[in-house]
Amino acid sequence: MKNNDKKPTSIVIFGATGDLAKRKLFPAFFNLFLDGWMPEDFELLSLGRTEHTQEEFRNYILENINDFSRIKNFSEEKWNQFKEKIKFVRFDITQEESFIQLKNQLDGIDAKLGARANRLFYLSVAPSFIEKVSKSLKENGLANNMNQDRMIIEKPFGYDKDSAVALNAMLAQTFKEEQIYRIDHYLGKENVQNILAFRFGNTIFEPLWNNKYIDSVQITVAETVGVEDRGGYYDGSGALRDMIQNHLMQILCMVAMEPPTAFESTEIRNRKVDVLKSVRRINLEDINHYTVRAQYTEGEIDGKKKLGYLAEPGVNPNSNTETYVAMKFYVDNERWKGVPFYMRTGKRMSKKESSIVISFKEVPCTTFQDRIKKMQPNKLTINIQPEMDINLSFMTKKPGLDMKLKPAEMVFDYFECAPDTPEAYETLLLDALDGDSTLFMRSDQVEEAWDVIANIQTAWENGNVSKMVTYPAGSSGPEAADELLKRQGHTWLSNSNETLKTKKDA
Amino acid sequence: MKNNDKKPTSIVIFGATGDLAKRKLFPAFFNLFLDGWMPEDFELLSLGRTEHTQEEFRNYILENINDFSRIKNFSEEKWNQFKEKIKFVRFDITQEESFIQLKNQLDGIDAKLGARANRLFYLSVAPSFIEKVSKSLKENGLANNMNQDRMIIEKPFGYDKDSAVALNAMLAQTFKEEQIYRIDHYLGKENVQNILAFRFGNTIFEPLWNNKYIDSVQITVAETVGVEDRGGYYDGSGALRDMIQNHLMQILCMVAMEPPTAFESTEIRNRKVDVLKSVRRINLEDINHYTVRAQYTEGEIDGKKKLGYLAEPGVNPNSNTETYVAMKFYVDNERWKGVPFYMRTGKRMSKKESSIVISFKEVPCTTFQDRIKKMQPNKLTINIQPEMDINLSFMTKKPGLDMKLKPAEMVFDYFECAPDTPEAYETLLLDALDGDSTLFMRSDQVEEAWDVIANIQTAWENGNVSKMVTYPAGSSGPEAADELLKRQGHTWLSNSNETLKTKKDA
Repeated sequence: MKNNDKKPTSIVIFGATGDLAKRKLFPAFFNLFLDGWMPEDFELLSLGRTEHTQEEFRNYILENINDFSRIKNFSEEKWNQFKEKIKFVRFDITQEESFIQLKNQLDGIDAKLGARANRLFYLSVAPSFIEKVSKSLKENGLANNMNQDRMIIEKPFGYDKDSAVALNAMLAQTFKEEQIYRIDHYLGKENVQNILAFRFGNTIFEPLWNNKYIDSVQITVAETVGVEDRGGYYDGSGALRDMIQNHLMQILCMVAMEPPTAFESTEIRNRKVDVLKSVRRINLEDINHYTVRAQYTEGEIDGKKKLGYLAEPGVNPNSNTETYVAMKFYVDNERWKGVPFYMRTGKRMSKKESSIVISFKEVPCTTFQDRIKKMQPNKLTINIQPEMDINLSFMTKKPGLDMKLKPAEMVFDYFECAPDTPEAYETLLLDALDGDSTLFMRSDQVEEAWDVIANIQTAWENGNVSKMVTYPAGSSGPEAADELLKRQGHTWLSNSNETLKTKKDA
Repeated sequence: MKNNDKKPTSIVIFGATGDLAKRKLFPAFFNLFLDGWMPEDFELLSLGRTEHTQEEFRNYILENINDFSRIKNFSEEKWNQFKEKIKFVRFDITQEESFIQLKNQLDGIDAKLGARANRLFYLSVAPSFIEKVSKSLKENGLANNMNQDRMIIEKPFGYDKDSAVALNAMLAQTFKEEQIYRIDHYLGKENVQNILAFRFGNTIFEPLWNNKYIDSVQITVAETVGVEDRGGYYDGSGALRDMIQNHLMQILCMVAMEPPTAFESTEIRNRKVDVLKSVRRINLEDINHYTVRAQYTEGEIDGKKKLGYLAEPGVNPNSNTETYVAMKFYVDNERWKGVPFYMRTGKRMSKKESSIVISFKEVPCTTFQDRIKKMQPNKLTINIQPEMDINLSFMTKKPGLDMKLKPAEMVFDYFECAPDTPEAYETLLLDALDGDSTLFMRSDQVEEAWDVIANIQTAWENGNVSKMVTYPAGSSGPEAADELLKRQGHTWLSNSNETLKTKKDA
């Protein structure tokens, strides 16, 4: 549980002038500060390559907070307190001298405090720098207290299983696993966390949460954005690595995991990795049967023309990188045997949507068989973003003189309940400050998730095995993705808005 | 299923100048007419003892329709068509001559039609007249076509098991069981009918609907009204006979019944009577343990002074008749063994409320055991009136930085969905016109329901066995009713309004 009694902490942000720091990290720290969650004593050592005065850098942070933050209770007084904590440090990762100076600075903070402060290193840097930073931290003795020093790193955690294993092994030379916080910001999202509360805080859902009652599960993470200015990076990655391996796989774990005996880091992460271990590996020769990969072609979103992927700046015009994946997983254990988990994610889709749809089996009971042509099976939809709600669709008597049935919905609007919910990064940064790694990814999770998709990577790298299809920007994805589900009598289920519309029409 | 292709029908209303006809029957028939549900050819032969011209009687009906009906689309033209169907007939139940004249009138209608019309007799008369009417209908040959002639009767169906058996036997001399429509208007209420749609039209509720997951069930029918101008009648009856034996017992049947193989009269009524047969009979010596009876004393409702029951006009000042009952039933079958069904009903309660609350067992899973002092078990509330909704309460993550849980609700508002839902009497009259007896009580149901309460009646008639307690008008009932539940760690659960309040506060 969170407490406000935190040890003094020196927070070191590598890449403090980068995009993530600007949009997410500083606003999150400031919000935590406003809400009284930051330690009494802390400093934000903000490392960047170019020269800035403290004044310049702080003003730049303030601008970004105004642009990107959810803050509603901005206070000049609080900002003035907070900005004093921000220390811009000119830093060159490639220079050992920089690390030595940083050490002196950290030691100086401890000396002033009269105690060794906790140290939280946030590595918001390109993957290629992680090894260097990690080693230099160790060699210069910046992170030699394993109970007090933590490192947060961002994905990608490797680009396949072997590289992830190598990365973890390398990090293990400096930090113990307990000190490493691999961030997947999806796990900090309120309605993703809520999955566990919903499943294990109630009596009525868990008995239904298995292959006896659940027909299929769909996980969708759709974006309307394209590759933006990250074409070069993205073209070396693709949707499978960039989204399926982490965000969607983590959501799968939350949906499918066995009940943890306690809400405790090791326990939760054990139960999650159990799921990944049970995910059926797809044979190389079956990849086409289980997966669809696609690239967007030019199209329109909100009346605006959008380039096709191959025409995006930074993208190889002959690129074989997918911007869309649809696929089917099976979790081969007692609970889930036979239940397809459909996943899809794509860029330049018709709308932004992250959701989980649990489709229940058809009504076994014959009571109303001659009253209605097609009973709509129950459906539980968990909308993660932009909506944040839980919808339960069920059949009800159609109001009127006859006993006819119609579908209806119960909605729990998480957002309406708390329009000021914290950003994922606030939750996760606070957890890291508190030393709670529950919502972070452990090395074995990361490696297992890579293992799950290993054969798909292999098949796709061998282009003649698996075909690339296309979908127009602004569409709901390629036809092949519909075919994937149709084979088992399923369809992609649209999100709650459309169902709600039905409700109101009825 | 309902159809609009109905046979010509002569509807005969005994007691057409009475309160029920005025408030419920004529408005219901007119609404059915407006909505196109009445047969092409029908007449409303409206029997009353005092002389009225057709004009006078029709104007009186029109006034009542305006006063008591939900009609929103009143049309002068439609009324003019409808009023022609109303034929006031001066009638004296005690005179055979009246029945002979009525027969001639009915035969005349058939002659004009060139076919035998269906005949629907509505007996809105005092119980003491039922035998006379039934016999005279038979002896004078008014209801000799068993496939076309039906009789609707109102409760009370006897005053104990023996009298109910006798009444049924007497009716059986004139009518076959299939021709007798015993009306319990609670069964026509939309959200009562919806119980079956909800249970058997969905996959997700039935697996939970048993003693493995359900802790207890509460059925409440609370009224704010007192005995009004019916003190004399009520004092001879009381809450046990007037409410528990019929309305509450019928709701119990809907909640507890096994799945019917079809939505079909015989099947549904068989499953209901199965429940009554499984209800544990309470031994005479245990009556005090299972039941609470009470009378209201003077008090206040909405700031207005209300008389105590014993001071009400028409009530014996030493009356031993209960205006409130709270009790506990068990349904001793596989599904319900060990689950208490708590019932309560009373007059002059603090608010009008008919509801069913299904309380689920505590969360078995330890995931959040150290996160929350007391997990609130899931609760499904079906509000019948005045609200018409279904609420599912569940635990959710409390929005915020910590993993804390809080109760929340999903609501399906039946009324919002269809503010113009039909009145119970419309549904039931249409069913009777259609020959669909699903929502009416069969003789064995009535007798079995009396059997269930037989020992309670015996004990209460012997006043020294079971104590009468009191509750002030405008209160939520006697303390003894709270004690009844407290013994098993339960409390009466208030209705959705209060829970919703919590939700909004949270």
